[in-house]
Amino acid sequence: MDLIEEKFLKLGAEYAPGQEGRQKTNEIDVPFEKIPGRPVDFSHGDVDAFQPIPGSLDAFVEGVHLGGKQAYTEYRGGMDIREKLAEKLADFTNTSIDPDQHVILTPGTQGALFLAMGSTVARGDKVAIVEPDYFANRKLVEFFDGEVVPVQLDYYKTDTSAGLELTQLEDAFQSGVKLFLFSNPNNPTGVIYSRDEIQEIAGLAEQYGATVIVDQLYSRQIFEGRTYTHLCAENRIDRENVITIMGPSKTESLSGYRLGVAFGSEKMINRMEKLQAIVSLRAGGYNQAVLKTWFSEPAGWMEERIKAHQAIRDDLVAQIRAAEGFQVRATEAGSYLFPRIPELGISINEFVKALRLQAGVTVTPGKEFGPQFGDSFRINFSQDHQAAVEAMERVIQVVEAYRNASIK
Amino acid sequence: MDLIEEKFLKLGAEYAPGQEGRQKTNEIDVPFEKIPGRPVDFSHGDVDAFQPIPGSLDAFVEGVHLGGKQAYTEYRGGMDIREKLAEKLADFTNTSIDPDQHVILTPGTQGALFLAMGSTVARGDKVAIVEPDYFANRKLVEFFDGEVVPVQLDYYKTDTSAGLELTQLEDAFQSGVKLFLFSNPNNPTGVIYSRDEIQEIAGLAEQYGATVIVDQLYSRQIFEGRTYTHLCAENRIDRENVITIMGPSKTESLSGYRLGVAFGSEKMINRMEKLQAIVSLRAGGYNQAVLKTWFSEPAGWMEERIKAHQAIRDDLVAQIRAAEGFQVRATEAGSYLFPRIPELGISINEFVKALRLQAGVTVTPGKEFGPQFGDSFRINFSQDHQAAVEAMERVIQVVEAYRNASIK
Repeated sequence: MDLIEEKFLKLGAEYAPGQEGRQKTNEIDVPFEKIPGRPVDFSHGDVDAFQPIPGSLDAFVEGVHLGGKQAYTEYRGGMDIREKLAEKLADFTNTSIDPDQHVILTPGTQGALFLAMGSTVARGDKVAIVEPDYFANRKLVEFFDGEVVPVQLDYYKTDTSAGLELTQLEDAFQSGVKLFLFSNPNNPTGVIYSRDEIQEIAGLAEQYGATVIVDQLYSRQIFEGRTYTHLCAENRIDRENVITIMGPSKTESLSGYRLGVAFGSEKMINRMEKLQAIVSLRAGGYNQAVLKTWFSEPAGWMEERIKAHQAIRDDLVAQIRAAEGFQVRATEAGSYLFPRIPELGISINEFVKALRLQAGVTVTPGKEFGPQFGDSFRINFSQDHQAAVEAMERVIQVVEAYRNASIK
Repeated sequence: MDLIEEKFLKLGAEYAPGQEGRQKTNEIDVPFEKIPGRPVDFSHGDVDAFQPIPGSLDAFVEGVHLGGKQAYTEYRGGMDIREKLAEKLADFTNTSIDPDQHVILTPGTQGALFLAMGSTVARGDKVAIVEPDYFANRKLVEFFDGEVVPVQLDYYKTDTSAGLELTQLEDAFQSGVKLFLFSNPNNPTGVIYSRDEIQEIAGLAEQYGATVIVDQLYSRQIFEGRTYTHLCAENRIDRENVITIMGPSKTESLSGYRLGVAFGSEKMINRMEKLQAIVSLRAGGYNQAVLKTWFSEPAGWMEERIKAHQAIRDDLVAQIRAAEGFQVRATEAGSYLFPRIPELGISINEFVKALRLQAGVTVTPGKEFGPQFGDSFRINFSQDHQAAVEAMERVIQVVEAYRNASIK
């Protein structure tokens, strides 16, 4: 097998969220009746239930009317938009951001993540990633021919921190890791790293001269007014060694516009722009104009949104905890839950397929987030409240059905 | 210097079209007075002079109103849009395209090019590219750690073919090249490959089992009713070894929406989708809806557009040919001209900077398209007709001024 074929065999997207429609399901012979109910796709948020920021389409249309100036921005994005955004992001993260040097706009946070990794990982580099964490992290390291060094997140250990195994992180740095990538709040568990954990991460990275890429996609949707610590604002780490990634695709429901932003290290932002020049040129020119609405939502809009999500979380967590053999840590930020289920007669991937075919419920299997999570699945509960609760009932029924059954 | 630093040093974007505003120009001390005139940016087309397809914004707005279905398509793009597009593209290229297996929508044709190259080029692979050709081609090969094998296009040799040195291409295949990448019409010269040339390319690729990626971005804007040959329709080559790239960013002025499409080999489209999953997830969901207007322009719209461009080309070619020491081959398709200028007392990159600062005219230096083109520059003449003619007069004046002068 040649190098490239090998690389793409590892780069499977069959179970990735949103790709379920491409799964080959004809080999599954489900032994149970279909369970009726309104279909729910928990693989991503429902932007019909929670709509985009008011005025976002108007901002896009204004961008179109600006014409060529907005269509052809610098590869890192239009300067006027970067200026406004740098100010808002600096306020939010409590740091300083030079719009000319420290910011790049990208096609979604996925775009930012790809560019940041492509700008840092060379062949053979050891890269520390968390398990569980966003499913693309591992794939990115592998695509750039790096070596994954996993660090465990023991998220059931405590509820006063995320549960990162800091000694494993230090071991990783000692073994030669020069890059640490993680999401905060963690995807898929929705837990927040404590201030102590962030300071430890910063301190270790500084001590070993490592770079840190932190994906803060869901950092605006914090429940119960918890404390959230922005790594980039910690003075324990050289700011040239930190890239922070955010975007309005989740809480703000702007995913259809494909917008993300990375900010931090001037050197890395420069590289990311050079790479963007050959990857996609720029975030869609007109789309960039939509960023004007971000962090400028109507008064009370964000508070309402957080409250509504917290209410859904509360109901789902209660349902899950009441189900026999289930376990879940409650989301602290963002819209993910990562329940652990009892042992079944089928694999987690088979369970996920059966769940979709029998009960119209789409979830993401735990193995996408780390090979050891064959007993868990992720949901994004940014859904119609009632539909989500009903769908979770069906999940529990299907688990019950497969406790001792297998698929032929 | 580490591997990644070396890689990014090669990946310069300072002279790339659209990035001129980031050039450091304080070191230039231009010896001549500014030449007044309406600024013209020939680095890309002017979408204010030639506006997007009528109805494109309406199609976008309809996409937004479709909600989550349009925001979260499969990574390869929404099936309904792929279906319509496959039919139109099959008609246009005279081939058959299965919308489920043979098509992927991407953020711009740049996105398609990146995914196609990333799906084919492994470390150490020899890749044949044309000189001159699109400036990103070389950078893509280098980014994926491939080895560039240049094949010359002797575009002044004849006007009955593009002028590809076919013996060099065969030598390249004999030396182990398994991938050939080229643009047709050629960027930057605007010449079309003859039917014979395309058949030779197809025959050689088939003989040596090589893959061909052909960038046909400007293939709808053909002047004087010339014959254009689609490589994908030639039966001399295994269709699983061909990827064709197109998009509505140029002739159709939809660049601000970042849309492209690649079609062909099922195996490669599958890989490209897996790669897109970690690069940017998908072309902007709402943006994809704009593709409904592509190949469905109002009656006569495309003919008018081609006629207007041909008229600009005619005037510019006449001006250039009348200027002492200039040489140019007339564009056969698309909006590029690649004039050769007389020897100056300054380098082509200095000339390009001086031209912008002194005369308000932005062009792209020839070296972006191949190291040997230090005597040429590229313009995109999709501009206001009168402004383009006036700007070309200033180009000629600046060349005249620097024939024997240097910059301190």
